[in-house]
Amino acid sequence: MSDFREQALRYHAEPKPGKISIEISKPAETVTDLALAYSPGVAEPVREIAADVDNVYKYTAKGNLVAVITNGTAILGLGNLGPMASKPVMEGKALLFKRFANLDSIDIEVSHRTTEEFITTVANIADTFGGINLEDIKAPECFEIEKELIKRCKIPVFHDDQHGTAIVTAAGMLNALEIQGKDIKSAIIVCMGAGAAAIACMELLIKCGAQREHIYMLDTKGVIHTRRNDLNQYKLLFANNTDKRTLEDALSGADVFVGVSGPDVLPPEALKLMAAKPVIFACSNPDPEIKPALAHAVRDDIIMATGRSDYPNQVNNVLCFPFIFRGALDVRASVINDEMKLAAVNAIRSIAKEPVPQEVLTAAKVDELSFGKTYIIPKPMDPRLLPRVAKAVAEAAVASGVARLELPDNYYC
Amino acid sequence: MSDFREQALRYHAEPKPGKISIEISKPAETVTDLALAYSPGVAEPVREIAADVDNVYKYTAKGNLVAVITNGTAILGLGNLGPMASKPVMEGKALLFKRFANLDSIDIEVSHRTTEEFITTVANIADTFGGINLEDIKAPECFEIEKELIKRCKIPVFHDDQHGTAIVTAAGMLNALEIQGKDIKSAIIVCMGAGAAAIACMELLIKCGAQREHIYMLDTKGVIHTRRNDLNQYKLLFANNTDKRTLEDALSGADVFVGVSGPDVLPPEALKLMAAKPVIFACSNPDPEIKPALAHAVRDDIIMATGRSDYPNQVNNVLCFPFIFRGALDVRASVINDEMKLAAVNAIRSIAKEPVPQEVLTAAKVDELSFGKTYIIPKPMDPRLLPRVAKAVAEAAVASGVARLELPDNYYC
Repeated sequence: MSDFREQALRYHAEPKPGKISIEISKPAETVTDLALAYSPGVAEPVREIAADVDNVYKYTAKGNLVAVITNGTAILGLGNLGPMASKPVMEGKALLFKRFANLDSIDIEVSHRTTEEFITTVANIADTFGGINLEDIKAPECFEIEKELIKRCKIPVFHDDQHGTAIVTAAGMLNALEIQGKDIKSAIIVCMGAGAAAIACMELLIKCGAQREHIYMLDTKGVIHTRRNDLNQYKLLFANNTDKRTLEDALSGADVFVGVSGPDVLPPEALKLMAAKPVIFACSNPDPEIKPALAHAVRDDIIMATGRSDYPNQVNNVLCFPFIFRGALDVRASVINDEMKLAAVNAIRSIAKEPVPQEVLTAAKVDELSFGKTYIIPKPMDPRLLPRVAKAVAEAAVASGVARLELPDNYYC
Repeated sequence: MSDFREQALRYHAEPKPGKISIEISKPAETVTDLALAYSPGVAEPVREIAADVDNVYKYTAKGNLVAVITNGTAILGLGNLGPMASKPVMEGKALLFKRFANLDSIDIEVSHRTTEEFITTVANIADTFGGINLEDIKAPECFEIEKELIKRCKIPVFHDDQHGTAIVTAAGMLNALEIQGKDIKSAIIVCMGAGAAAIACMELLIKCGAQREHIYMLDTKGVIHTRRNDLNQYKLLFANNTDKRTLEDALSGADVFVGVSGPDVLPPEALKLMAAKPVIFACSNPDPEIKPALAHAVRDDIIMATGRSDYPNQVNNVLCFPFIFRGALDVRASVINDEMKLAAVNAIRSIAKEPVPQEVLTAAKVDELSFGKTYIIPKPMDPRLLPRVAKAVAEAAVASGVARLELPDNYYC
């Protein structure tokens, strides 16, 4: 057993199993404490909520509580291993919500027969929480699941594998294109992969200005084009009226490569086919579509990002999901809409362009980080993310009319 | 607004809403910590669980996690106020699980159309947890719900309003009868109320030796007897072949009154009809079926218990539910069976017969507590409950063949 493997297993098992616990947040020692917490005192908030259901936010933990919900059908890059195998990932996500945004978060693993049963199950327990983060649910079911749950739930529902990935990718991509002197509106984009993250990334890039007809999306059968008759409704939206068929065809003259597929699928030689100053996002984890060293060996005019922390420009969802929920819950948004997603993109982008606090440099073990080819997005440990992204998201929720509260006084000022 | 009411609302609202929070139980500060907790380290326990699903107990919080689940159809004595109004009670229950047995516990409020949909919803999320405490679900649906969930879930499912109440009632009742010199086998028992708690209490008293034909159960229409044609299948089990029709008829010569109904329904005069040395359990909360002062004014040979902490002999579920789950989870019992319930009854009974620790006297603000008419069951703050009840329950689970683990070494020795 490798050292790291052993260390990871020990971390999860000792001194007690798991990574989260549930704690009492009010005094609960004396008989008097317990008379307030439970019988007879608890009848008072019960009556207040029965009289006005909004009081549930005043007297219970609901407003700060995010459920991380999965069925375990697409765990990390490991596939459909079932709900139980996903539990360490879901607890990990709950840990990150707390660590980065002080949100209380609990994992829920769902077994089900049909997609409809999954949706009903989640909708039926949704009122328990202030928000729902869907996680590791495979495509194409994840699209219908998210759409239906948004419709049925009164709280924000957000599939992080889609939108968290898309937001961080878009923030990094727009910054990279700016550094390369390119405009998203005219960029030719190759997207390797056609799953949940790929489709969400491309949809968000389109909302940021990309042209749908400039996008060449590839699945395992090659370029998705209008003459194919094997496409589901989600891929069909990216069917390009083109003669391009192979990855090499698509890369010819392209400005951008986005990989959300699998390891080592981008041959270094193929990079040479791309336009000048291309942007390469090889986000497959843990092994990217092309190793940075191989890519840089072939061309010296690229900007490269991956999903890994040990290379520059890590596309990491943790730059987004804790803070988008923080902002959404703080103004009690009913949904997380496009305005809020774009606000998150812009907030993340702008942080990367500003001087980096010393503590971030210390954590990253570097002397300097300045906006440029090897620093296009903030580091996960950057303490500016919480106030800036949460505030931008909350403001966008208020401005777009989906918030039920005004921005709190001096909110992250 | 009364002082207590104001205090209870403030307790729930300030400094932040609610009574429980979710916390990180492992180091999560540095980049290295997070690499173990989430990507890439988390893949290791995922693979271990995919290989053997039992490893979920080794690497996640599941084994110490109890869900408190309701649909809000029978909240305290307040009725069907819906899932949201029940949330303070459910959070309160989670608080008690932590406070008394160090179990992590989270509330889940379920909305649903049909009973079947409730059952399916809970069954679908059950694997998330180590055990399920059903709470505040109205009769008669609660019986079918519990029965089906026990069948469908691999973890213990326990409706506390039924069995927690029954276990504590049985413990107190057996001690009271012993003090009064009566035998449960020949006791004539009047049960005022025919809901979930009433039926469970009587079923458990029968398992402790009471004769079914000695029980007179009353609902809002009077004594439940064999000539009535308005009885559901659960009440039907208590249909007595008798000419008794009224409460007074039933009380005539009875040894025991158990009230799980409503305030002040037992007229003091009616007490005179009972046999010598009767036992009166007036458990309606907050107002008992008869106030102790009124009862004692009529007869001086009674033993009386209520649901309130400000009278002697409080029948309080907290004497049972934290510890029965503690014992069940510690040996990974698949169910909470009769053997475990009876073990809890006996453990609670025996504690009341032993000298009381000084800390319990201090907390109860008394100089002395000794087994007798005004001390038939332990106080909720008694620190002996956790080790004694949990151990008795765990041993019973092992002995009855429903435990998947042996008793841990030196378990509460």
